Amino acid sequence: MNRDAPPLSRIVEGLPPTVPFVGPEQQERDRGRPFAARIGANESVFGPSPRAVEAIAQAARDAWMYGDPTTHDLRGALADTLGVRPGNLVIGEGIDGLLGLTVRLFVNPGDVVVTSAGAYPTFNYHVAGFGGRLVTVPYRADAEDPEALAEAARAHGARLVYLANPDNPMGTWHEAESVARLIDALPDGCLLCLDEAYVEFAPAGTAPAFDLADPRVIRFRTFSKAHGLAGLRVGYGIAEAGIAAAFDRIRNHFGVGRVAQAGAMAALDDRAHLARVVAEVEASRVEIARIATENGLSALPSATNFVAVDCGRDGDFARAVLRGLLARDVFVRMPGVAPLDRTIRVSAGRAHDLALFAAALPEALAEAGAAKARA
Amino acid sequence: MNRDAPPLSRIVEGLPPTVPFVGPEQQERDRGRPFAARIGANESVFGPSPRAVEAIAQAARDAWMYGDPTTHDLRGALADTLGVRPGNLVIGEGIDGLLGLTVRLFVNPGDVVVTSAGAYPTFNYHVAGFGGRLVTVPYRADAEDPEALAEAARAHGARLVYLANPDNPMGTWHEAESVARLIDALPDGCLLCLDEAYVEFAPAGTAPAFDLADPRVIRFRTFSKAHGLAGLRVGYGIAEAGIAAAFDRIRNHFGVGRVAQAGAMAALDDRAHLARVVAEVEASRVEIARIATENGLSALPSATNFVAVDCGRDGDFARAVLRGLLARDVFVRMPGVAPLDRTIRVSAGRAHDLALFAAALPEALAEAGAAKARA
Repeated sequence: MNRDAPPLSRIVEGLPPTVPFVGPEQQERDRGRPFAARIGANESVFGPSPRAVEAIAQAARDAWMYGDPTTHDLRGALADTLGVRPGNLVIGEGIDGLLGLTVRLFVNPGDVVVTSAGAYPTFNYHVAGFGGRLVTVPYRADAEDPEALAEAARAHGARLVYLANPDNPMGTWHEAESVARLIDALPDGCLLCLDEAYVEFAPAGTAPAFDLADPRVIRFRTFSKAHGLAGLRVGYGIAEAGIAAAFDRIRNHFGVGRVAQAGAMAALDDRAHLARVVAEVEASRVEIARIATENGLSALPSATNFVAVDCGRDGDFARAVLRGLLARDVFVRMPGVAPLDRTIRVSAGRAHDLALFAAALPEALAEAGAAKARA
Repeated sequence: MNRDAPPLSRIVEGLPPTVPFVGPEQQERDRGRPFAARIGANESVFGPSPRAVEAIAQAARDAWMYGDPTTHDLRGALADTLGVRPGNLVIGEGIDGLLGLTVRLFVNPGDVVVTSAGAYPTFNYHVAGFGGRLVTVPYRADAEDPEALAEAARAHGARLVYLANPDNPMGTWHEAESVARLIDALPDGCLLCLDEAYVEFAPAGTAPAFDLADPRVIRFRTFSKAHGLAGLRVGYGIAEAGIAAAFDRIRNHFGVGRVAQAGAMAALDDRAHLARVVAEVEASRVEIARIATENGLSALPSATNFVAVDCGRDGDFARAVLRGLLARDVFVRMPGVAPLDRTIRVSAGRAHDLALFAAALPEALAEAGAAKARA
């Protein structure tokens, strides 16, 4: 009797077995102690709306029931808020889950997908995961480059193009007109995946108006950032109705549970909390920039809930600074690709989070400088 | 400028645009009024553990943090409970989500997958969704037929075989020895997807002992049934370590959120609640059988939290009975394939749920009989 393992599918056997996602909990277990400031994953330390907390607690008693697989009420509430129709919305297990479904909907093995070198790695993970071929273009002045993305899409006959606006990990952004020009410059049959996870923090004029007759773009938003509900995993896509409906062919229909739907509904309803968070984030960005400047560094302008702090030298130096911060119990992250990796990415924090950062940074810089000098 | 919709991938364009998943909420909206008894989706009306409710409420305050993508603590607790190692476990967005990932891991387009005609439709949905070719064998005496499954797998060189033990929708079950014989009868390179969603309700001797060196089977269990947490969406797979690790190549790493992990942990810890639910379900099965008998029908033996009630005639008659129950605000479901569709599937209920069923059934039967006589 043969007890060999069954062979993986052709696409999966070509994927790396390594796990690209190391969360702060794993780092804490490896270090043997918790972080004192958790400002590395662009979470909202300001927390969710108290109404969402209450709604989750209430929904917990009803957690024996599956959630509505059509997410009818949540889509209705979102449609009202956004001024779109429920049929233009698809709800999923975070933007991460929806990006995977989007790749699956539109990409055949070997098809080209275009993104920026250093942009959101989870998108790349899904492209590889469905056998797509990734083509990258460089950032330009620390921002994703719409013209270069469109040019690469045309040159390679891309099926998808990814743009985060505002951008992660740099925090930079484009005005709506740039995005509109990118859409018009795409080749036929190419879909723009416009990741607007941070759009609530961006200045007016960043997000294009909704053109729900246009099937060339799908926009992704989330309850994980400004709404402070990363732990619930609710993201949504906004698209032309035919595009939105296509997700019903493949999505995990009961994947967004009752508790998550209830929490998101309540969060959406608390506009005052959202406004407070946005204000807190703005103040926090100013403070992070002040701390950077105080240490002889520069902060990039940001339309998100984080700030990329330019450490002024190369990636090795920034990585040393990052290590110094982690060693001082400050959880931050940094871009993985040069030249973006001369920066560290600091999420908005409460006063005491940023005080810890402010205290740790000079020491981390000194240590990194000393290490650098020794090398 | 071309504004045509981007073409779907070759696999997706062949999938039906219809949605196979109609939840009770949609039925309630269509009817214009709620159900009085929700005993159709094999949910646990007995509710989750109060400890799980409390844990969810507590976790809500921390919902601004992503969940640990490794689900370290939950896997550790499950490993302790099951007597396996954390590396033998993969946690996902319900068994539904894990079934989709399993198909994706092992099935190339055109590969054969074997299941039973009338077995879990969501598995079939995922097989189609990744371009697999489904081969079905009939039930035998209202149970899935391990010998026929193995024979079909060998005849077609199947990559996956699906068996639910205990079975949904019939509630029947096989002893562990039958499952072990099925595994040994599989062709080389074929993986058994052993769905044990209802195993907590089954008699001792239903689940085979764990043989964690054997990569020919992956077992699926869930917090949605006995633990009463369908609304959280937490399922898990138990497999040889290499099989379990393969999921890391493709899964949505942050897909099971912090709130869901916390609720599942607490539920797992409340063994007394689980025991109470299992006892309630046993009593409820007896009561459903009594109601069936009282109405001249027969109840199939069940090792699950539901009972298939044989309406004694054909599918049309059972569908008429079902309609009569729905019209009387009793939400139940029924199998979709003959000859299973001579039954209706009634989930375990509290006393008042079953009292409503008991009151509605004679009227529904009379109405269906009259309708049948007219036809």
